Amino acid sequence: MGYVTTEETKRRGRRPAGADTKTALVEAARAVFTEQGYEGATVRAIARRAGVDPAMVNHWFGGKDGLFAKAVLQLPIDPAQIVADVTAGDVDSVGDRVVRRFLTVWDSTGGGQFAALIRSVAGHEMAVTGLRELFVNGVFGPITRYAGGDGDPMLRATLVASQLIGLGMVRYVAGFDPLATADINTVAAAVGPTMQRYLTGTIT
Amino acid sequence: MGYVTTEETKRRGRRPAGADTKTALVEAARAVFTEQGYEGATVRAIARRAGVDPAMVNHWFGGKDGLFAKAVLQLPIDPAQIVADVTAGDVDSVGDRVVRRFLTVWDSTGGGQFAALIRSVAGHEMAVTGLRELFVNGVFGPITRYAGGDGDPMLRATLVASQLIGLGMVRYVAGFDPLATADINTVAAAVGPTMQRYLTGTIT
Repeated sequence: MGYVTTEETKRRGRRPAGADTKTALVEAARAVFTEQGYEGATVRAIARRAGVDPAMVNHWFGGKDGLFAKAVLQLPIDPAQIVADVTAGDVDSVGDRVVRRFLTVWDSTGGGQFAALIRSVAGHEMAVTGLRELFVNGVFGPITRYAGGDGDPMLRATLVASQLIGLGMVRYVAGFDPLATADINTVAAAVGPTMQRYLTGTIT
Repeated sequence: MGYVTTEETKRRGRRPAGADTKTALVEAARAVFTEQGYEGATVRAIARRAGVDPAMVNHWFGGKDGLFAKAVLQLPIDPAQIVADVTAGDVDSVGDRVVRRFLTVWDSTGGGQFAALIRSVAGHEMAVTGLRELFVNGVFGPITRYAGGDGDPMLRATLVASQLIGLGMVRYVAGFDPLATADINTVAAAVGPTMQRYLTGTIT
């Protein structure tokens, strides 16, 4: 048996391609992640529930992490694109790029989506596991390896995560001024060197 | 009329000193902060509801901020004591002391209280206002002024807050390893220089 049997396809009706397929996958993903948790959910199970080819998950969302980001966390970003943007360019200015990319992503949502993300982290173990996979392994890990600092790359990755999460908390959730309303150049000048040191500098 | 009329004292019965007075104040504070919000709540109103002298609020809790920290946030700390500890010593090592003090406070609670604090911030405007008063104005502000960095001390204070909140999120809420389980010396070596720069270094 394949992922979608002929019986299933008949019963559910044939899915049109494109937007409807994406919507069906997002809805199926929400249900399966909720029922099975992040680790238990499989691309195969989600695709089966949506009545589509599992290959479409990779095609549309770049795999399980991307589907989780879109369906459950409703992030305004494509994690793979972030990594591509930040790792294109001089390693000596990666810290500055990390801060600017973080701000352009979340400033654009007015901060509401960051606050929603934090609520989901504070309330649900599933979200925590998914975020660890998505951000630590999927975003900060690759950026740290690109930067090439010595020692444990995951310590560097979680340090980067700590400063960015805290920046988001102050700017989008708590609204502590002046950092909450400072312009991007001000924040990049203040926080960029922190990122640079966590990625390439001496941390021990 | 004073804070407690003779009539009120008679009706409520006389409060014994010490532990019962503190308990009564904490219970009254929870009620008044909830009804009035952080800014609307007054020491006078809380003391009146508890049937005790407003001077006792200052005596036991160091004022409204301390009572909010104890009653609503249930923090395991005395904010004034933190400031005293961190500002005693050489300015050149203040960053290291800030990180170590943060970790010893919250590691001792197993992180559960930090997570509770974040949930309250993510869910309630009252908690946000209270935290701003308590931490930004009451803790990080005085530490920043002691450190004496140039420029806007509140930008420095909110930068310090951002790194510490993010450290707490990674260590106590999300549990991203290895930062979540790193020993205090490792975290101080990594994050201390960030604190030092935010407090005394060049940030523009």
